[in-house]
Amino acid sequence: MIVVLTGGTGGAKLVEGLYLELDPNDLLVICNTADDLEVHGLYVAPDLDTVVYTLAGIVDRAKGWGIQSETFTTLQRLGQLGEETWFRLGDQDLATHLVRNRLLNQGQTLAQVTARFTKMLGIGAQILPMSNDRVETRVKTHKGEISFQEYFVRDGWGDSVEGLALVGVERSRPAPGILEAIGNANGVILCPSNPATSIGPILAVPGIREALREVQAPIVAVSPIVQQRPFSGPAHKLMAHLGMEVSSFGVAHAYRDFLDLMVIAKEDSELIERIGTLGIQARATLIGMEKTEDKKRLAQELLTLL
Amino acid sequence: MIVVLTGGTGGAKLVEGLYLELDPNDLLVICNTADDLEVHGLYVAPDLDTVVYTLAGIVDRAKGWGIQSETFTTLQRLGQLGEETWFRLGDQDLATHLVRNRLLNQGQTLAQVTARFTKMLGIGAQILPMSNDRVETRVKTHKGEISFQEYFVRDGWGDSVEGLALVGVERSRPAPGILEAIGNANGVILCPSNPATSIGPILAVPGIREALREVQAPIVAVSPIVQQRPFSGPAHKLMAHLGMEVSSFGVAHAYRDFLDLMVIAKEDSELIERIGTLGIQARATLIGMEKTEDKKRLAQELLTLL
Repeated sequence: MIVVLTGGTGGAKLVEGLYLELDPNDLLVICNTADDLEVHGLYVAPDLDTVVYTLAGIVDRAKGWGIQSETFTTLQRLGQLGEETWFRLGDQDLATHLVRNRLLNQGQTLAQVTARFTKMLGIGAQILPMSNDRVETRVKTHKGEISFQEYFVRDGWGDSVEGLALVGVERSRPAPGILEAIGNANGVILCPSNPATSIGPILAVPGIREALREVQAPIVAVSPIVQQRPFSGPAHKLMAHLGMEVSSFGVAHAYRDFLDLMVIAKEDSELIERIGTLGIQARATLIGMEKTEDKKRLAQELLTLL
Repeated sequence: MIVVLTGGTGGAKLVEGLYLELDPNDLLVICNTADDLEVHGLYVAPDLDTVVYTLAGIVDRAKGWGIQSETFTTLQRLGQLGEETWFRLGDQDLATHLVRNRLLNQGQTLAQVTARFTKMLGIGAQILPMSNDRVETRVKTHKGEISFQEYFVRDGWGDSVEGLALVGVERSRPAPGILEAIGNANGVILCPSNPATSIGPILAVPGIREALREVQAPIVAVSPIVQQRPFSGPAHKLMAHLGMEVSSFGVAHAYRDFLDLMVIAKEDSELIERIGTLGIQARATLIGMEKTEDKKRLAQELLTLL
C-alpha cells in the first residue's frame, strides 16, 4: 500500500500518475480539507473534488480542476439573483456539492460521502479527507481575516499575508483508517503541494505527523518549488510568511522530522548537498508534469525509489 | 387592490393576464405551497416559482412552468451519481432553490425569500405563499402515502387516490399581510386551479376561508373544468375522491360559502341555472388561455365584472 498526502491541482497530477502506475487497490490518498468552504449554502471541498475528478478521468485538464466541458448556467442566474459569483461553481460540479451537502446533513461523514463518489465514479483507489472534522485555514490580510478561497480565488492572492491560522485543527481527528494506513504503508509520498496550506494542514491534524515520524517505510516528498518559485499559486508567499525558506531546501526543512528522501527539480541540483545536512537524501530529476507521460514517469521513478 | 388565489400552471396564466391589465401595485397573489417538496436537499416551491417565473417573463411558455431555454446539466450528473432524477430541476431553476434554501436556513421566511425574488426579477406585483409554515399534501395510493409531486410528477397521476391529507395545516398561519389584503381588497379572484389540491390548501389555512366569508368585495372564481374534464392535470380524480362533482357546478359548490360569481366555459352554459341555485351568479365565456391575448381578455372581463 502506498499512502499519498496531497492538496489540489499540482498534487492531483502526481496522484494521477501513481493511479496509472499502481494497482488502484494499493493506493490510498489523503487530501487536505482546510480549504473547504460553504458556497451558496453548500459544502464544497476543492482539493478532494480535484483528486476525485482527476482519477475519474473527468477533470478539466487545461485548468487542472473542475470538470471538463463545464457550463455555468446556474452560476449566471445566481448572479442575476444578486449572489456573489467569484467562486466559479460549474453545473456538473454542482451535482457533487448537492449530493454531498444532503448526505452531510443526513449525518454521513465527509469520508463516507467521498467513498460514495469514488464508488459511483468507478475509482479503484481509496480517497480520504484528512479529517471528518471541520478545519479551516484563515488568512489575515489588510482586509481582515478571510477564508483561504477568498484570499486565493476571490482576491487572486495579491494581498500580503499578515497571518495564517488553522481554526479547529487542535480538536480534529484523522479520518478513520488514516493512521492505520500510514502504519501499514510500504511507502509514503508527499505530493508537490503547498507545504504551508495544503500539506501543512494534513500534518497538523493531531496524530498524523506523529505516525509519519514512527513509520518504518520510506517517506518521499516531491518539491512544489523550482528555484525560488512554485509551479503555481501562492506557496512562496505563504511559506515566506511562516518563516520557511522559499526553496526545495525550505520544503525539506519543513518535513525534516520524518522525511527520508526529497525529489527536486534538475535546476535545483546544487541544493542536494544542503538538503543532505538535514539527514535527508535528495535527488534531482524532471518534476514538471505537463503531460500524462510526465506524470507516469515521475510516479514510476518514485515507486522505484521507494 | 385585487387579491388572487392560485396554484401553478393554469392559475399562472390568469395571473399573467391580470398583471398585464392592472397596475402591478394593485395586484397581490396568494400561492399554494402544499405541493412544495425537498429535492436534492433543497426546498422547492413549484407553484410559487411558476408564478414568479411567469410574471418575470422567463417562464417556459410551452410547458407552463420552469424557465425558458432551460438545460439539465446538473440533473444529468446527479443521475450519474446515483440520485433520483424524476423531478426535472433545470440548471437555471436550480439557482432559485439554492438561494431560497440558503436564506431559509439563515432564518428568513418563505414570504421574505419570495419578496427578494420578485424584487431581483423586477416584478411589481406582490406574491405571497399561503403560509410561512410547512403544509404538505399527502396522497394515499396502493403504494402507500406519498407526496403530491411523487403522485403527480413521478407516478404521472395514474394511480387511483385512496386518501388525501393536508399535513400541518391545522397549525399553519396565513403569511403576514394575507388577511389584511383580503379584508381591504376591491375584489378577489380564484384562479382556474385545482380546487382539491391547489385552491383547497389555501382555503384550509385557518383564517383565510373565514376572511373570504366576511369580505364585502365581490369574489369571483374561474372554473378549471370544462364539461367533466380539467384543462390539465388530475383535478377530476382528486375532486372525485373528495366527493366533489367533477364539473363547474362542483367547483362552485366547493366555494359556495363565500363565492359571488362563477365564470365557466361557454360549453357549460347549461350549468348557469344550477349554479344559481347555490346563490352564485354564473357567467359563461371563453376561459381557455392559449395565447397572451386570451389571458388579457379574460383578465379584463373579470376586472369589469368585479
